[in-house]
Formats: sequence, C-alpha cells, structure tokens
Amino acid sequence: MKSQHENKAPRNWQMKLHEIIYESEKPEGKAFDIALLACILISILVVVLDSVDHLHQLYGRLFSVMEWFFTIVFTIEYILRLICIRKPYKYIFSGFGIIDLLAIIPSYLSIVFAGAQSLLVFRALRLLRVFRIFRLVHFLSEMRFLSVALLNSLRKISIFILFVLTIVTILGSIIYLVEGPEHGFTSIPQSIYWAIVTITTVGYGDVAPATPLGKFIASFIMLLGYGIIAVPTGIVTTEMALAVKSKRQDNRACPSCGKEGHEHDASFCKFCGAKL
Amino acid sequence: MKSQHENKAPRNWQMKLHEIIYESEKPEGKAFDIALLACILISILVVVLDSVDHLHQLYGRLFSVMEWFFTIVFTIEYILRLICIRKPYKYIFSGFGIIDLLAIIPSYLSIVFAGAQSLLVFRALRLLRVFRIFRLVHFLSEMRFLSVALLNSLRKISIFILFVLTIVTILGSIIYLVEGPEHGFTSIPQSIYWAIVTITTVGYGDVAPATPLGKFIASFIMLLGYGIIAVPTGIVTTEMALAVKSKRQDNRACPSCGKEGHEHDASFCKFCGAKL
Amino acid sequence: MKSQHENKAPRNWQMKLHEIIYESEKPEGKAFDIALLACILISILVVVLDSVDHLHQLYGRLFSVMEWFFTIVFTIEYILRLICIRKPYKYIFSGFGIIDLLAIIPSYLSIVFAGAQSLLVFRALRLLRVFRIFRLVHFLSEMRFLSVALLNSLRKISIFILFVLTIVTILGSIIYLVEGPEHGFTSIPQSIYWAIVTITTVGYGDVAPATPLGKFIASFIMLLGYGIIAVPTGIVTTEMALAVKSKRQDNRACPSCGKEGHEHDASFCKFCGAKL
Amino acid sequence: MKSQHENKAPRNWQMKLHEIIYESEKPEGKAFDIALLACILISILVVVLDSVDHLHQLYGRLFSVMEWFFTIVFTIEYILRLICIRKPYKYIFSGFGIIDLLAIIPSYLSIVFAGAQSLLVFRALRLLRVFRIFRLVHFLSEMRFLSVALLNSLRKISIFILFVLTIVTILGSIIYLVEGPEHGFTSIPQSIYWAIVTITTVGYGDVAPATPLGKFIASFIMLLGYGIIAVPTGIVTTEMALAVKSKRQDNRACPSCGKEGHEHDASFCKFCGAKL
Repeated sequence: MKSQHENKAPRNWQMKLHEIIYESEKPEGKAFDIALLACILISILVVVLDSVDHLHQLYGRLFSVMEWFFTIVFTIEYILRLICIRKPYKYIFSGFGIIDLLAIIPSYLSIVFAGAQSLLVFRALRLLRVFRIFRLVHFLSEMRFLSVALLNSLRKISIFILFVLTIVTILGSIIYLVEGPEHGFTSIPQSIYWAIVTITTVGYGDVAPATPLGKFIASFIMLLGYGIIAVPTGIVTTEMALAVKSKRQDNRACPSCGKEGHEHDASFCKFCGAKL
Repeated sequence: MKSQHENKAPRNWQMKLHEIIYESEKPEGKAFDIALLACILISILVVVLDSVDHLHQLYGRLFSVMEWFFTIVFTIEYILRLICIRKPYKYIFSGFGIIDLLAIIPSYLSIVFAGAQSLLVFRALRLLRVFRIFRLVHFLSEMRFLSVALLNSLRKISIFILFVLTIVTILGSIIYLVEGPEHGFTSIPQSIYWAIVTITTVGYGDVAPATPLGKFIASFIMLLGYGIIAVPTGIVTTEMALAVKSKRQDNRACPSCGKEGHEHDASFCKFCGAKL
Repeated sequence: MKSQHENKAPRNWQMKLHEIIYESEKPEGKAFDIALLACILISILVVVLDSVDHLHQLYGRLFSVMEWFFTIVFTIEYILRLICIRKPYKYIFSGFGIIDLLAIIPSYLSIVFAGAQSLLVFRALRLLRVFRIFRLVHFLSEMRFLSVALLNSLRKISIFILFVLTIVTILGSIIYLVEGPEHGFTSIPQSIYWAIVTITTVGYGDVAPATPLGKFIASFIMLLGYGIIAVPTGIVTTEMALAVKSKRQDNRACPSCGKEGHEHDASFCKFCGAKL
Repeated sequence: MKSQHENKAPRNWQMKLHEIIYESEKPEGKAFDIALLACILISILVVVLDSVDHLHQLYGRLFSVMEWFFTIVFTIEYILRLICIRKPYKYIFSGFGIIDLLAIIPSYLSIVFAGAQSLLVFRALRLLRVFRIFRLVHFLSEMRFLSVALLNSLRKISIFILFVLTIVTILGSIIYLVEGPEHGFTSIPQSIYWAIVTITTVGYGDVAPATPLGKFIASFIMLLGYGIIAVPTGIVTTEMALAVKSKRQDNRACPSCGKEGHEHDASFCKFCGAKL
C-alpha cells in the first residue's frame, strides 16, 4: 500500500523521469542505462587516449571538445536525477551520487585552476564513473550472490590479510638485515615492498636477493605465499557454497514427520509424503 | 523412429563414410580420428619449427613440401566431409567447419598473394586446427561436465572480469599520475598494462614503480590481485560441486505427476506427494 | 565449582588487573588491548621509518627517544602481567610470554653490546610484537574456525610441500646440468632456488633459461606449478567446508546415552536409537 | 589363511629382515626407514653442496668419500632387499626397485666412464632417491586420500592442460606475428615459451611485448591465465570433497524406513530410530 502511495505522490512527468533514470525494468529505462553506459565508456576512452603523447598531438583539440561535451551531458543527467527524485539529498549523499558529482566537478574546476598536472588528476577521478556500470548489473541475482558471499567472508579475509601484513613486515626486516642496502634492500619499507612482491608471487625482479641466505629466505617466502593463497580461496569458496545451499533450500519442517532440508521447490515432504 | 529413418535415407557408402569421419564409436572411426589428430599435430609442428631461423635454412624445402602434403590431405578430408553428410551447409557453417576451411584456404591463397609476412599469418591461422582434437574428447562426460560448470559460472565470471577491468583502469591512471613518464609509465594505457601485469601477479618487471608512493600503491594492487583470485576459483568450484551433485542425483520420474529431479534420499515425490 | 574457587583465591586488585590485562570482555579490558595494539603498531612504525636513511638523518634522535619510551611501557606491561597472574611461569613459557620478553630484552642488551648491525637485529626481533595483535582477535570465532581448518589440513599440506621440495630438487639439478654455470645456473642450490622461483610462479627473471631444452624444462615446471596450486587449495577448502558443517551440526546430547554430534536432521540418536 | 601360509614359508631370519626392511609397523622397521631416510637426505646434500664451486675446492675429497660410503650402504641395502623377499623380480621391476638401482649404478659406472659432465648426470639421477621418503608416508591415510582425489581428477585435468597448450600455441604464434624477432620473439617456439611464462603468471620479463598491440594481447593472456587457474582448482577441490564425503559416510539403507545417508559411526537410523 505505502509504496504505491509514494509512487502516486509526485507529478506525472517526474514519475516518468524517475522510471527512465532510476529503474531498468521498462524498455525506456534500459535504453537510458545503456546510452549512459556508452557515454561513460567513451568519455573514459577519451581520457585514456588523450594521455598517449602522439595521439594528444594529433587529436588533442578533438579530445578536449569531446570531454566538454560529456561533462555537459553528465551535468544535465545529474540535474535531472535531482529534480525527479522525491528525497534529493538521499541521492546526493549516496555512493553513486558522490561519484556522479566527482565525475563532473573536475572539468569545471579545471577552468579556474589551470595546469596540466592538476587536469590529469581530475581526469583520473572521472574514471570513477566506470563504477556506474555496476548499477546496470546491480539487479542481477549473480551480483547479489557474489556480494553476499564476499561480505560473509570479509571478517575471515581481513584476519588473513592482517596475518600476511605481519609476515611481510617481519620477513621484510629480516631480509633487510641479511641482504642490506648493497643489494638493493635500501630500507625496511623497501624490503617490505620486496616481501609483498614475493609473497604475492608477482616477482618483478627489480630487487632480488643475492646472498645464499637471502635466497633461502626468499624461497621460504615464495613457498609460503604459494601455499597460503589457499586460505582466502577456501574461505570464499566455502561461503559461496553456503550461499548457494541457502538459496536452493528453505528450512521448512514437515508438519507430520518434522524433518527439514526440503528443496525450495518442494510442496510435499520427501520423507513421509505429507503436505508442507 | 525418425532418427532411425534418417540413418536409412543416404546410400550405404555414404553411411559408412559418415560413420568413419563423423563418429568415434566404431574402430574405423576411432582410427580415422587418431590419424587426423596426428596429421594436425605434425602439420603444426612443421609450421612451428619452420619459424626457427636455422631450421628454416636447413630444412626449408622439406617443410614447405610437408605443408603442401598436409594441405592436400586436409582438402580431401574437407571434401569427403561435404559429400558424406546429408545437410552439408550445416557442417560448413558449424564452428569446426569454418575452422577446417580456414585451415586449408591460406595455403592456396599464398600462391596468389605471395609474401613472407602474409604467409606467416596463414600459418598462424592453420594452428586453429588444433581445436579439432577437442572432437576426440568431445564425448567424454568429463568434457561435458567441465563445459556445463563453466557455462553456468560464465555470468558471474564476467561480472568479476568487469570489476577487475574497472580496478586496473582506475589504479592504472592513478599510478600514471603518481609515477609519471620519467619512470616508464609513459601513458595511461601503458599504466593500465602495468596494472594488469601486477594484479594478475605476472610481474614482468619491464615497468616497475620507483617512488615510495608508487610502491605503496603497487603493494596494494598485488595484495588485491593475490586476494581476489579467490573469487573466480570460488565461483567455478561451487558450480562444479553443483554439477557433480546433479549428476549423482537420481532422475527417477514421479509415477503420478511425472516430475523429475528428486534427491537421492527422497522416498516421496516432493511435488505431488505420491510414493516414488 | 572449582573454577569459581580459583577466581576467588587472588586478592581483589589482582583480579581487577587480570580482567583488564588478560580479558577483553569488560570495557576496561577492551580499552587496554586497543591501547596496547596502538603502542605496538607505533613502535614498529618507528623501527621501520628509522631504517630509511634520510628520515634517520632528520628524526634519528626522536626515533630513539620514542623507542626507549615504548621499551619502558612494554617492560611495565610485562611486569604487571607477571604479578596479576596466579601461575606466572605459565605465562613466561607461553608463546606470547616469550615474544613479549623478546620484544623488550633487545633494547636493554643494546646498552651493553653497542654496534649498529646488532642493534638492527634487535629491532627486527621487536617486530615480533605484531603477533600480539592476534590476542585481540583470538576470541573471534572466525580465528578459531580458520586455525581449526588449517590444523586439520596440516598433515596433508606437509606431504604436498615435501612433494614440491622433492620436485624442485630434482628439476633444479636437471636444469643445472642442461643450462650450466654460463647461463647463471652456477650451482645446484642456485638452480633449486630458480626452480622454486619458477614453480611458485614468482619468476624474478634474475636467472632465466637460455637454451631451447632449458626453456622446455622451464615451461614444464611452470605448468606444473600452475596446476598443483590446486592441491593445497583443495585441501584447505575441503577442511573449511567440514569445519563449517560441524559448526552447523547441533550438539544435542542423547537423553539416554548422552553422546553428541548428531546431524541437524536427526530425530533419533544414531548411537542408541533413543528419541532425541 | 593363504597370507598366513605365505608368511610361514620363508626362513625365520628372512621374515625378520623382511619385517625390518619392507614394513614400518614394528619399531625396528620404523627405525630402519628413518635411518635410511637420513642417509638419503645426507647423500643428496653432499651432491648438492659439491656442486657449489668454492665448497668443492674446500671439501671435494670429503664429499667424494662420503658419496662412496653412501653408495656402498645403498648397495648393501639393495642386496638385502633382494635376498629377504620371496619374489625378488617383483621388487626389481617395481617403481622403487628401479629407482633404488638407478641410485647406485651411476657411481660404479663413473669408475669405468670418467668425465665431470657425465658424473654430474649420475649425481642428478641419484637425487631420485628422495622419492624413497614417500614409502615412509605411504601408509598415511592422508597420502592415500590425496592420491585418490588426484587420480579421479586426472582425466579432467589432462583436458585442461590440453586446452592450455592449445591456447599458448595459438597465442604464441599470434604474438610472434605481432611483435616479431626485433622484440625478442625470435621464433614461434620462443613465443610459445613466452606465452607459457605469461599464462602461468610466472612472468620472468626476459622477453616482454613492446608494441601496443602486443601489450594488449599480453594483457588478454594474463587475465586468461589469472582466470582459468580456477578450473584445475575447482576440479581437485570437488574431487576431494567427494573423497571426504565417501570416507565419512556409508550408504547403508535403514531396514525399516529405507532411508540412506547415515554417518559411518551410526548404529541406529537417525530418521526412524530402527537398528541398522
């Protein structure tokens, strides 16, 4: 009842606009979302390509024109969002609201405070727009499924990361003592950086142990990192398995035999055949 | 009934040929497939070895002769496939049909349009033949099992990849601002490339951060990549577990309502409550 | 009864102190733990930053003052721990007790035995303090859950590591014979180090095969390492799944035989057949 | 009956020896195995250390003496194995029998055919002795558990490896066409080697793409390799879960209610309470 009343309250054109901009069920809404997504991707592509030197020389003017075009488009979109929603502040202070604002402010600021370097910063921020695309898939059950599993395992994962950070701090400072500045381990932070590069099996090779003992410790870190990757994987997998199970199974108890564990599509007890 | 009728329709020698070429149940069919596989592998080996400079000097002539031999063999095979099947266009426009054609055209084209570079392209295409080997294992339940699990997790995986691409775009452009061209991060695309190299824990080291802040961001990307590998793994593992379960679930049909998909421990139909 | 008696035995102020220092339930206990954690992290940060050359030049004096401050703080904490516990030796010889001692001794020793290098060693040891933070999360069920799963899979994992070590020893010495000292494989230990770098997919690139045969063997090691990572992951995941299951299993005791560990869907004791 | 008879057949001292050498149940047997393991590890250590140049200069004589000592020890062991077993040829042609022989032959051959290089080969072979250690753990249920899970997933894994090899062959030759010899991709085999280095996320960096298109393809390979690692992991994990399940559960059906899925320690039906 209540939600229905809310939908009636605003004027008709507002409702229409709200449906188009905020919802994806109706064809217009879907079309709007896809068009917006296209704009976001192209605007990012412009920023990215503009950073390539010889492309900037060739199409620099075109790029800046396109940038301004998209800035205006996104500004109009932002204003429309504000006028067609019943509680604008809710949108403004929502995650997407802030991102949307961050995506348009920079260009305007760039007029007042000129300067190549700062401009680039603004451009980088604009890339946050990409996150908008998640709104498109936001309604997919897959998306919800994943986020549920990840949120459940968040606490376990953070313990794991805490453990990894402790390990790399200790091993980093040990390797720093063993190898020393003459082999590129100029400080403990630098050595911790190396330990992270090693335990995550990235292995740039810009810094590598030279002494036998250093190589022995390095081998230990590698095998450790190679092994403990199993922990986060195990955590997430277990959580996902649980999420799947709970999705496929309700815990209705059979009224006659009282047994549980019936599938979500079961309308009769599979043990005694009584009606659920 | 119908399928039986179809098998009767074509002439005998066509049926025989069809059995040999398209089926693997009969010994002749198996022999044909293995022989074909051998030809494919050898022809690829020829292309690969021919690309090694000193081997090309020594056996260049032999290689080109063998290439032409295999081209002719595969051409004959292609023609036989066409004449022994009842709906040739179905094969021509099937995945394997196109690949088979792509595997023989190049050599013939290479007569008309000469030129080393182009020739090499043709050779590369010919490598697609390897995919034919999948036809051999296509009937293994394992193969079907794997593809089912992967197809089911496709949607989830694509969300994950979308997420990774967003992350590397943002982090790539941030690192570009932090490190700048003087440390090898010459442009945002280049920096995105570096971010991918880092988040996938490949870590070539051709480009590596030099500033403390850059190294800090790099460490963050590494730990992120080291952690989120758990997500696709979890997805695929869960799907496989489900696939296994459904394989072990009996497909007894309910005698009264005829529905299937009852659990192995079910003694009553969960849909209509009838005794199984 | 007995435990209650033990809690009564010590004097009141000791009990109070014990609650604050050893327990985290009461607000004071929580506050103490968080304050201690902050001290540990800051003291480590001091050690880490002090190792950066130009920071040492600038704030060397400040750092050493802070170090001494924390050393004294941790000494007082250590003494308090001893006087407020009923069986001090139990704490002294416990894992945390030893670490806590190791965290304060070095500074005092550094007065007697001066010398930069040795000092650094002491600092590195002090980093072990970080492990204290685990006491904070020690009571989290997540922590217990993880440790249970890892302990259960310890035996399987160790077999796996034994296998990996065997593989790298054999492949390392084979690659040593194939590549030889002229390509950087100066000795078998060095080659084993390279094999570990490769099988764990770290791949520094400081040593890399140059001969075709060497590259072939390297490719084999890579694919092997890429594949067998599945083993520890599978082990840990399975153990975690079991741990989750046993956690979700109710611990109803049978009214007649008193045994526990019945499944959640059990309505009769599986040991004596009595109604649960 | 029969096995008992077999145990009676040989002479007493043979039976005793057999118990010591081939079995690990009795204390003597355990002691023998541990002593043998120690010998193996030390003999390998000698080979490894002897390959380090300056250690060879210092202790070369000592090492060669130790080598001969262990060679004689292992020879005696080999002879004892032959005389105390009832069907010697069975041992000779068993996996361990061949390895044991390979572990001693080289030293003797090295007398006849001298030469540093060849000697090294013999030493490398001797490293195979390490595999003996698996005999120690062979009886652990963990070992059996792991091997069962891996054997079951062997077929699936091999399909996966076949797939990976196909991918790297195609992508390798494509990158060869894109980058060409001037950027280190001197031939298709070399490019395939690079593709393996990349898809397994090892990333030495000895060869790295230089052109934008090459970097794009490289990024694709990295993300592919980062993603498909999930496949073998999922396979092994699923198999292990099944192995665990079958270990923890028998499929006895309840005589009164006919339901299955009772735990291995259940002596009464958990559904109806009837005796199993």
